[in-house]
Amino acid sequence: MDKEMTIVLAPDSFKESMTAKQACEAMERGIRKVNPSARCIHVPMADGGEGTMQSLVDVTGGTIYSLRVRGPMGKEVEASYGITGDGKTAVMEMASASGIGLVPAPQRNPMIATTYGTGQLIRAALDHGVEKILIGIGGSATNDGGAGVFQALGGKLLNAAGEELGPGGGELGWLATIDMSSLDSRIEAVRIEVACDVTNPLCGPQGASHVFGPQKGATPEMAAELDANLQHYADVLKQQLHRDISNVPGAGAAGGLGAGLMVFFNGVLQKGIDLVMDYAKLEEKVKQADLVWTGEGSIDDQTQFGKTPLGVAKMARKHHKPVVAFAGRIGEDVDALYEQGMDAIFGIMQGAYSLEEALAQGEKNLERVSENVMRLMMAFLLRQPDVR
Amino acid sequence: MDKEMTIVLAPDSFKESMTAKQACEAMERGIRKVNPSARCIHVPMADGGEGTMQSLVDVTGGTIYSLRVRGPMGKEVEASYGITGDGKTAVMEMASASGIGLVPAPQRNPMIATTYGTGQLIRAALDHGVEKILIGIGGSATNDGGAGVFQALGGKLLNAAGEELGPGGGELGWLATIDMSSLDSRIEAVRIEVACDVTNPLCGPQGASHVFGPQKGATPEMAAELDANLQHYADVLKQQLHRDISNVPGAGAAGGLGAGLMVFFNGVLQKGIDLVMDYAKLEEKVKQADLVWTGEGSIDDQTQFGKTPLGVAKMARKHHKPVVAFAGRIGEDVDALYEQGMDAIFGIMQGAYSLEEALAQGEKNLERVSENVMRLMMAFLLRQPDVR
Repeated sequence: MDKEMTIVLAPDSFKESMTAKQACEAMERGIRKVNPSARCIHVPMADGGEGTMQSLVDVTGGTIYSLRVRGPMGKEVEASYGITGDGKTAVMEMASASGIGLVPAPQRNPMIATTYGTGQLIRAALDHGVEKILIGIGGSATNDGGAGVFQALGGKLLNAAGEELGPGGGELGWLATIDMSSLDSRIEAVRIEVACDVTNPLCGPQGASHVFGPQKGATPEMAAELDANLQHYADVLKQQLHRDISNVPGAGAAGGLGAGLMVFFNGVLQKGIDLVMDYAKLEEKVKQADLVWTGEGSIDDQTQFGKTPLGVAKMARKHHKPVVAFAGRIGEDVDALYEQGMDAIFGIMQGAYSLEEALAQGEKNLERVSENVMRLMMAFLLRQPDVR
Repeated sequence: MDKEMTIVLAPDSFKESMTAKQACEAMERGIRKVNPSARCIHVPMADGGEGTMQSLVDVTGGTIYSLRVRGPMGKEVEASYGITGDGKTAVMEMASASGIGLVPAPQRNPMIATTYGTGQLIRAALDHGVEKILIGIGGSATNDGGAGVFQALGGKLLNAAGEELGPGGGELGWLATIDMSSLDSRIEAVRIEVACDVTNPLCGPQGASHVFGPQKGATPEMAAELDANLQHYADVLKQQLHRDISNVPGAGAAGGLGAGLMVFFNGVLQKGIDLVMDYAKLEEKVKQADLVWTGEGSIDDQTQFGKTPLGVAKMARKHHKPVVAFAGRIGEDVDALYEQGMDAIFGIMQGAYSLEEALAQGEKNLERVSENVMRLMMAFLLRQPDVR
């Protein structure tokens, strides 16, 4: 007990309640009420999904830029991307420009939905002279194999008559020629890292169209046509670009955007949480820590599949640091999390209230339970019983 | 770390969700999931209010008896009392026989409400040959100065014409003669201990009638009459029994039942939590503990005024044991509790749900947060950082 306590605060966002950065700040307020000398290292986290751009901008002291791009259904939308504090990396979420959340359910149609807007975000990022682009590709409205991104960056996809294909997965069946001659050449010097947690192939029963098409508005007939189109797309890519992606895991992510980023731009797919931990330099911070805290809006039986709290817990366990998680909601089956590294999980609710109230009071509640976990730890340090 | 961990579990009941005993059991289930060798000492607690009989019966391995008695408004009610495991003490709550909860709001009337049923409970307890009777007197519907209890035990309260007074505080103005000749003589050998947290005098602006009368259905005119009647009652008691209770703190508790128990039966008023801690032998159990856990349905700014969690916390602090509290609801202003001995307070909610769901899931939730507090403690013991 001869040095100050260092605590790494590495929560994800608490969806609809607070960003990861706000969660770090709430935790620190609670800690400081009890232990003013504690050193808190803020590592706002994410898992490649929603909130990834915000957290990586926050953790690196970066900047967020907004622009209007073509939305998935052709209508303009306001989208954004981030540049990290060192100016070397752009961080974006395809959902910001081409996400399913941008399209009301009755209007969803993967036959015509395009990733063009995501390509516009990439082009805007290139203007900053970045060396790397991290793209989170969850939550897409599209099934176009990344064709829209390619087109937005100057690539041409032509039919047999030499005409440009229109937007969406419904057009890919007409693809005859891929023309890369007018592609934005700056992209060649940039490393594209793709945060992707699914391993589905591009085509077939486990492919993009059959597995994810229906939730994007595809009827069974559409799904079959989209799947055939992606197969044709893969065939042309193989023939003309000499890259066979038909059996690459993750090629089917985001309606085939995974495939497009790999083939056109040498994109590298990685698990979102691993990418974010890397960008956020979590490991070197954990090494300095006495304790590690994490959290997310909900911790449940899905948390073990690539979510932030377990990623952080595993990292903490690797370095033998106690790790505590906080959540607004804790599901029933979380024993697997304890087994894989989580030491304890605390709910932040201070009483029975509606989801609406819970979301509104999230920061205050997280602060309060943080205070009490710190109180318990201090009590233990000061009056530690000699027991096992 | 060379001996098993001993944990004293001393919660109050979680009102409308679980008894104190059930709370102990839920805590132990959570603890054992993590630390099967832990020794858990169950001390179901109470503070003299609702749940006191149940907890003291549970903690001593006693028995509960039920019988039909005269309710506060004259109608029969089912009431109960407990006999502790050693058979030497009866434990009862006046509210069981004469409580305000037994009378629907529109029918409440302290002019005629009587403590007669409480007297019947005492008489039934005497049949067990007990040496002591502990009476919790919170939650009364009455303002009769304990006249009903006296009458139920054979005492006579006569008007100037030598006729017995009817029930209720409205009759006391007619009191002329107190006749103790036919009082149940067994009561003389029994020590009456009264759990009472209020210090109001019998009469005057801070007296029973003005302060508590309105919530029992008294109009301002009734309150004035009831106050005058209790003053007359005190005068007669002083004159004929030579006991002046007009300035005794607590005489005004439970519509003057405090006064009646003191004057007629040499009852001793004590703070409920102190009495219960004594009966439950909490202190000697805390001395054996490495940790002390407490809790109650709600912990808030009222908890410092004689509620179980702070009583237990003070006892734990006295013996330098870490103490953790659990609650379904934690109010905003609990800093005073930390200052007075509580180390940490954890909410048991695992998500946002309605009060109804929260009450129904109380035991499960308490088990889960108990498990996680134990997990945190074990993590700390196993991988304790060397920090302050």
